[in-house]
Amino acid sequence: MKLDKLVGERFKERPVDCVVDSHALMVRGGYIKQVGNGVYSSYMVLRRIVNKVERIIKEEMERIDGQEVQFPVVMPATLWEESGRYESIGAELLRFSDRAGTPMVLGMTHEEAAVHLVREYANSYTKYPFMIYQIQTKFRDEARARAGLIRVREFSMKDGYSFHTSQDDLDDYYNKCHNAYKRIFERMGVPQVVSVESDSGMMGGKVAHEFMLLAPAGEDTVVVCDSCDYRANMESAERINQKSQPQNLQSLTKIHTAAAKTIPEVCNLLKIPETSLCKAVIFQKEDDSFVVVFIRGDLEINETKLKNFLKEDIKPAIITLESGLSAGYTGPIDLPNRISESTQILFDRSLEDGENLCCGANEDEYHYTGFSFARDFVPTFGEIKFNDFAKVVDGDICPKCKQPKINLTRGIEVGNIFQLGTKYTQSMQMQYTDQEGNLQFPLMGCYGIGVGRLIASICEASHDDYGPIWPKAIAPWQVHLCCVRSDDEKVKAVADNLYNQLQEKGVEVIYDDRAVRPGVMFSDADLLGVPLRIVCSPRNLQEGVCEIIARDKSIQQKTPIDQVLEEILNKL
Amino acid sequence: MKLDKLVGERFKERPVDCVVDSHALMVRGGYIKQVGNGVYSSYMVLRRIVNKVERIIKEEMERIDGQEVQFPVVMPATLWEESGRYESIGAELLRFSDRAGTPMVLGMTHEEAAVHLVREYANSYTKYPFMIYQIQTKFRDEARARAGLIRVREFSMKDGYSFHTSQDDLDDYYNKCHNAYKRIFERMGVPQVVSVESDSGMMGGKVAHEFMLLAPAGEDTVVVCDSCDYRANMESAERINQKSQPQNLQSLTKIHTAAAKTIPEVCNLLKIPETSLCKAVIFQKEDDSFVVVFIRGDLEINETKLKNFLKEDIKPAIITLESGLSAGYTGPIDLPNRISESTQILFDRSLEDGENLCCGANEDEYHYTGFSFARDFVPTFGEIKFNDFAKVVDGDICPKCKQPKINLTRGIEVGNIFQLGTKYTQSMQMQYTDQEGNLQFPLMGCYGIGVGRLIASICEASHDDYGPIWPKAIAPWQVHLCCVRSDDEKVKAVADNLYNQLQEKGVEVIYDDRAVRPGVMFSDADLLGVPLRIVCSPRNLQEGVCEIIARDKSIQQKTPIDQVLEEILNKL
Repeated sequence: MKLDKLVGERFKERPVDCVVDSHALMVRGGYIKQVGNGVYSSYMVLRRIVNKVERIIKEEMERIDGQEVQFPVVMPATLWEESGRYESIGAELLRFSDRAGTPMVLGMTHEEAAVHLVREYANSYTKYPFMIYQIQTKFRDEARARAGLIRVREFSMKDGYSFHTSQDDLDDYYNKCHNAYKRIFERMGVPQVVSVESDSGMMGGKVAHEFMLLAPAGEDTVVVCDSCDYRANMESAERINQKSQPQNLQSLTKIHTAAAKTIPEVCNLLKIPETSLCKAVIFQKEDDSFVVVFIRGDLEINETKLKNFLKEDIKPAIITLESGLSAGYTGPIDLPNRISESTQILFDRSLEDGENLCCGANEDEYHYTGFSFARDFVPTFGEIKFNDFAKVVDGDICPKCKQPKINLTRGIEVGNIFQLGTKYTQSMQMQYTDQEGNLQFPLMGCYGIGVGRLIASICEASHDDYGPIWPKAIAPWQVHLCCVRSDDEKVKAVADNLYNQLQEKGVEVIYDDRAVRPGVMFSDADLLGVPLRIVCSPRNLQEGVCEIIARDKSIQQKTPIDQVLEEILNKL
Repeated sequence: MKLDKLVGERFKERPVDCVVDSHALMVRGGYIKQVGNGVYSSYMVLRRIVNKVERIIKEEMERIDGQEVQFPVVMPATLWEESGRYESIGAELLRFSDRAGTPMVLGMTHEEAAVHLVREYANSYTKYPFMIYQIQTKFRDEARARAGLIRVREFSMKDGYSFHTSQDDLDDYYNKCHNAYKRIFERMGVPQVVSVESDSGMMGGKVAHEFMLLAPAGEDTVVVCDSCDYRANMESAERINQKSQPQNLQSLTKIHTAAAKTIPEVCNLLKIPETSLCKAVIFQKEDDSFVVVFIRGDLEINETKLKNFLKEDIKPAIITLESGLSAGYTGPIDLPNRISESTQILFDRSLEDGENLCCGANEDEYHYTGFSFARDFVPTFGEIKFNDFAKVVDGDICPKCKQPKINLTRGIEVGNIFQLGTKYTQSMQMQYTDQEGNLQFPLMGCYGIGVGRLIASICEASHDDYGPIWPKAIAPWQVHLCCVRSDDEKVKAVADNLYNQLQEKGVEVIYDDRAVRPGVMFSDADLLGVPLRIVCSPRNLQEGVCEIIARDKSIQQKTPIDQVLEEILNKL
């Protein structure tokens, strides 16, 4: 098509409200226009990319026997009441009433609708396994929509739901889908996407993966091992404790530390590193009872791990006098005798072989030094257990290859897969008759990819100052043909001829024959990010050539006019 | 794919809540499942049809230079306030507030969003003309969702919007789009779709067409001419008056008709046909002033025509004593002198050469006979004008070919196109600079096709008692392969081989190799409505043949096994 007919504005100035590059470039390039907070319209350039992305997703879903279906955007609240999510999800689930006063919701995900669609059909084990998926508009009433298409309120998502009669079968399909996702991202030209183990929280299932496109603008921290293929997100990354060298044990000494009670203050006063501290981090459960977690002074608590261990929600503690806890001076020694029975005491792995530590003395203005767990701590509740509650840090030991090569980097979540187990089938009473004639709840998996966010993430990972650099498989066009000085009849004839030839060969070509300066022409081309550019100009014509330039700068060559077509076809 | 893996229930019993056949068959065939009032999920069978329909629509839109875009489902109310429709549209526009309390709407159409997307871009005459379109989910909070996919609340629609700098250009593009729509319906195999002139009401524009799929279950009346290609809907069909033969004029006589005041009572009393009556139909405007329309006794008022003539809304009149009108006895003679100045008197064309008529005498229990307009009616307001206010009836004269061949039939509206003029561009302040440097409002056209309704309508027009008969271009599969007695190894081998061969040739084939009775197999095939069926069975195998049967019964043949593939490829 001709560029002068392409609807959408392109401009040079970075909009002030754009924090991330993909947002700025997609606004500047005429891809999107904001309609409301977190709600966008798309121009044709973006639609062409979306269509290609969706086609790749559909092909890969069909390859693993996914059946395309469609669920509604607007659903009656009763459906979400069945699963309990109408109550449990917060304001991000948009609730409203229709003209008849019936409570409705806007779909932000479709587990309930999926179960609703198949629960009568799949009443016998013979119908299993199967997977249904859709690509559909969703709405999540985010409190803070931001970063253009990366965090919006209205978005298009591929969501798939599989149903199984055994954990083995679910595992098997889950792996198939994991591989399909890898193929999807490879086909789209973004090898930067890695899958990381993620936390499935209190969803019931134990296995979940996020697919992260590694990019500096990412809002999530991704834990990768530089020595093997281990990947995890922060919430789920296991921290392996590095055994410390055996030391000469110091004697336990109670010392007056006065007002020094924060980690830096105590370290500063005693001239010791933070790793020599046994720190107490205190939370409260929903019933306000306390949880004291001891952890090495330099580490932080991963609250997700702690919640999963406790199987309930926690909040930062407000320490009262009645608690028996001494804020700033809480330590393990004699603690069980000072507190109420409802207070739970936990220990992080980082303290497992802890020796010569400094810890609170459970008395204002006093600490102990020379504290060694094995020698000085007498548990009143049986054997002391050390669990993994810490956030991993750079240089930690990889739980897979055991090398100290853990590296924290940034990523954008572009897809996720979950084993849901029977959470929805039980709550929504979906059952099948097994081979023995018994009623069973099927197991579910669910599999999502956000289409718009993926495209913005690819832009984030693949762009320069002038525009996106779209991978071939998803570029809006394959060739961007520039006719510099279209008022020059000879140049125009060469360019027109190339345009026609390329179209005849089925090449997707955008043709710029506007009477504009080359600078405008090239900056527009940069914003459209098409892989190959052909430049016809009076100067090139004098040499009998056209220039062929790759958007990613990997190619910049002059090619005789009669060989341009062949050269382009070869490169595509 | 194999039928035993196809997710969706098929069953024999017609659901009691299904009034129209397409609804019943699409539920019975595993195409749709209701989620809420007027809200459905779709199974794979329907999605395959939808994908084909959408592809044809997109191809034809691109052929007329349509650019695919996407507008949001959820929009801020402010956008609709700009056009005035936030106020003017009733409860079918679903209004709600998001978590921040911002008023929002669910898009039921996207004129506002279209203007919003392009109003900065299209600021110069050089950018025109252009057309943008999308296929997107919409929600219209219908008071009475019914008839399955024919009248739903949530639906998918192709909606396009074109922008022009002159009426000629709009006319030209409008015609192009009209032709594109004709091609779309032809390609989908539904020549039953006719375009009819429709009423654009008070939308501003004068030209509008509806595309009607003629089917007995249609909820709209379509006016067609049996002698030429004239088509219109009831609202817009012009009624041509058939000149009556000149008669010997009777003398005007006032007669006592006592309590006979309805048309049938008067006709019965005087032994005259309804065509000999001059009837008064009385309305009130919004300010409660009266409108008296005189029309021939056998005809009815087309209120749309009357509203368009008056350029305001009307309602049935409540006749008061002060009005000066005599309910049941209102007639033209001396009426202007009896009523207030605010009362408007109008005459339908059917009375233009009215002679020897019976009319009310504006006096209780009295009528005139022998009334002739030219002789007996003295207008007090200048020359009497006869306008077209009547509903057409079977046998009326065609306004195009002038033959008395008007025929009223039933249709379902599957598409519509409108010339919107500057209604939205003016209200939303979209302007461009013309060649002379003056600011102008562009003209708009809009072009809709409801995807789900179209598919249901095609089913309505093309089905039998056993299921839909899908046209090839949109059928979910092209071939339905039945292996009767798949426990017979030889039969299974023949069928498996055909399945593989057909797939290798790229034929879309659904393969039923379930261990079920032939009756179940064939009734399932009927419900899926695939154009060609191949039956492999022990009996056929004995003869060395397969049966090939067309779903529409146009083909039923036995073909030697080794020729089946070729025969199928020929027929497709």
